[in-house]
Amino acid sequence: MDQGLVQLDQGSGGRAMHELIDDLFLGAFNNPLLLERNDSAVFEIPGGRLAMTTDSYVIDPLFFPGGDIGSLAVHGTVNDLAMRGAKPLYLTAGFILEEGLDLGDLKRVVASMARAASEAGVQVIAGDTKVVPRAKADKLFINTAGIGLVPAGIDLSGSNARPGDLVLINGTIGDHGMAVLCKREGLEFENEIRSDSAALNGMIERMLAAFPGIHVLRDPTRGGVATTLNEIAEQSAVGIRLFEEALPIRGDVAGACEVLGLDPLYVANEGKVLAIVPAGGADAVLSAMKSHPLGKSSCILGKVVSDDPGRVLLQTRIGGCRIVDMLRGEQLPRIC
Amino acid sequence: MDQGLVQLDQGSGGRAMHELIDDLFLGAFNNPLLLERNDSAVFEIPGGRLAMTTDSYVIDPLFFPGGDIGSLAVHGTVNDLAMRGAKPLYLTAGFILEEGLDLGDLKRVVASMARAASEAGVQVIAGDTKVVPRAKADKLFINTAGIGLVPAGIDLSGSNARPGDLVLINGTIGDHGMAVLCKREGLEFENEIRSDSAALNGMIERMLAAFPGIHVLRDPTRGGVATTLNEIAEQSAVGIRLFEEALPIRGDVAGACEVLGLDPLYVANEGKVLAIVPAGGADAVLSAMKSHPLGKSSCILGKVVSDDPGRVLLQTRIGGCRIVDMLRGEQLPRIC
Repeated sequence: MDQGLVQLDQGSGGRAMHELIDDLFLGAFNNPLLLERNDSAVFEIPGGRLAMTTDSYVIDPLFFPGGDIGSLAVHGTVNDLAMRGAKPLYLTAGFILEEGLDLGDLKRVVASMARAASEAGVQVIAGDTKVVPRAKADKLFINTAGIGLVPAGIDLSGSNARPGDLVLINGTIGDHGMAVLCKREGLEFENEIRSDSAALNGMIERMLAAFPGIHVLRDPTRGGVATTLNEIAEQSAVGIRLFEEALPIRGDVAGACEVLGLDPLYVANEGKVLAIVPAGGADAVLSAMKSHPLGKSSCILGKVVSDDPGRVLLQTRIGGCRIVDMLRGEQLPRIC
Repeated sequence: MDQGLVQLDQGSGGRAMHELIDDLFLGAFNNPLLLERNDSAVFEIPGGRLAMTTDSYVIDPLFFPGGDIGSLAVHGTVNDLAMRGAKPLYLTAGFILEEGLDLGDLKRVVASMARAASEAGVQVIAGDTKVVPRAKADKLFINTAGIGLVPAGIDLSGSNARPGDLVLINGTIGDHGMAVLCKREGLEFENEIRSDSAALNGMIERMLAAFPGIHVLRDPTRGGVATTLNEIAEQSAVGIRLFEEALPIRGDVAGACEVLGLDPLYVANEGKVLAIVPAGGADAVLSAMKSHPLGKSSCILGKVVSDDPGRVLLQTRIGGCRIVDMLRGEQLPRIC
């Protein structure tokens, strides 16, 4: 099974597809709901608030320092649930395979997905596989959708930011986008830049336990910190000030960005959360973040203001101020 | 918006993507959960059993007689939920667009999806858009995932078929696959063959109201009636006998299959359900099916037996019997 190439008939619905599913998916995502092989998975759920989300992953290359399309497809969807405070429960996975894809690569991706799901505490309970002829897709695309339960008393939304709130982040920015770009373009720096791809639900649980009144959580993926903060500024009709001297950026990422003419504020992250917190809760949230392995370098990088609603401004080191707009144009295609 | 081509930067996460989403998706799938623009949609749900499923759609061509990739992406996922007896509630939609895709085509597909969702009584509450460079995908792929509530007292599974049960279907077989194939290959017959693509949840609700003790519901999509019945025979460890003279096949579909050397038993359907029902409930279920517009031509086409467990046999018109195996090889690529 780990040798050979994906064939067109493995997406036919027939015997070849069943064998692929049996050999590869059922073993890796081993759980009773999936093993039932029904049209949909059925499970008991308590009443309350449910969160639901989806993302497709078309990243190129499939494997990059710090992760691969499989772990990314789990982390991204788990994080989108966690951003509403939900405890992620179940994922679905849809695979679009290009005829000729290396089966060994597919097996590595699926194993990585299964490991990421297990680490994040979620189960992959339904799936689908399609195969398209050569040159009709690029190797492998994955869609994941997910659901999770939102505990009572939690109300997180991009529209909840209020003047006086502080903006926190759990570490350095731009790592994922630069790791993928350097790998894809064959750029080598002294130290290999690694993606920050990670499931944030464990850290977020600690943050909400420390201070349930957090206003906004959002992961700055495509479009980076700048675009995500612009979205929040628009949704909440507030202004956001970023402190340039506080922006946490790894030296190698800053260097690579400079060489390539990119602004790290617009480069994607896959293991970072922007938390917008009432000033009175900021210390508690920051401590909770720092107590978690994914938040050791957490810091405050900005504040919410009533001036310039809908806008993000950067207070520069030399005391100036410049508008940080949403990403325009395409900075880095296929980074997730 | 309905003129022009999809650009790479419309998948960037930045301003261009926001404009695409605002102009196209938020208007078409107009509902409060989607309009919140958060990382995931959050909604109240009563406690009980939830069904969850996913499918990706890579059909070629995008538009075919009787439907398009958008309506199909709704019908397919709604039907997978309905096959467990669930009342479908919410869908997510993930779009993978090829750079250069005609925006007018995309708009037609999205409008069709929205109409299909509205007719089926479901809401599209979360979405995602990726754009890949030219020749890295073929025009447009859509993934939908869905959830629904399973009423108390319903227990439908492919493993529930029992000897003595009857096998019912709500109309003719092979229509979808032949409609797509004829369109793709430019084959013309006297009458245009139309896909049967439809949301079956309304009819299934009537069937379960008439007789809640139905054992199995399954939609014979990829691999056709033959493959689906083989799956059930394996899951339930029973034999299934099909009556050749009872197989409902449209004359033009039979003719096209003959010309092309295809067996309609293996051709995909997208608006059909196979119902496996205890003999005592068959009349009630059949009447309920016939009372619905999608079930006017419903009939009994086979029975469940204890002989030959795991196998499907066809009783031919001349009194013989032949094994109907699961589809082997690829009969029709990209029919869904």
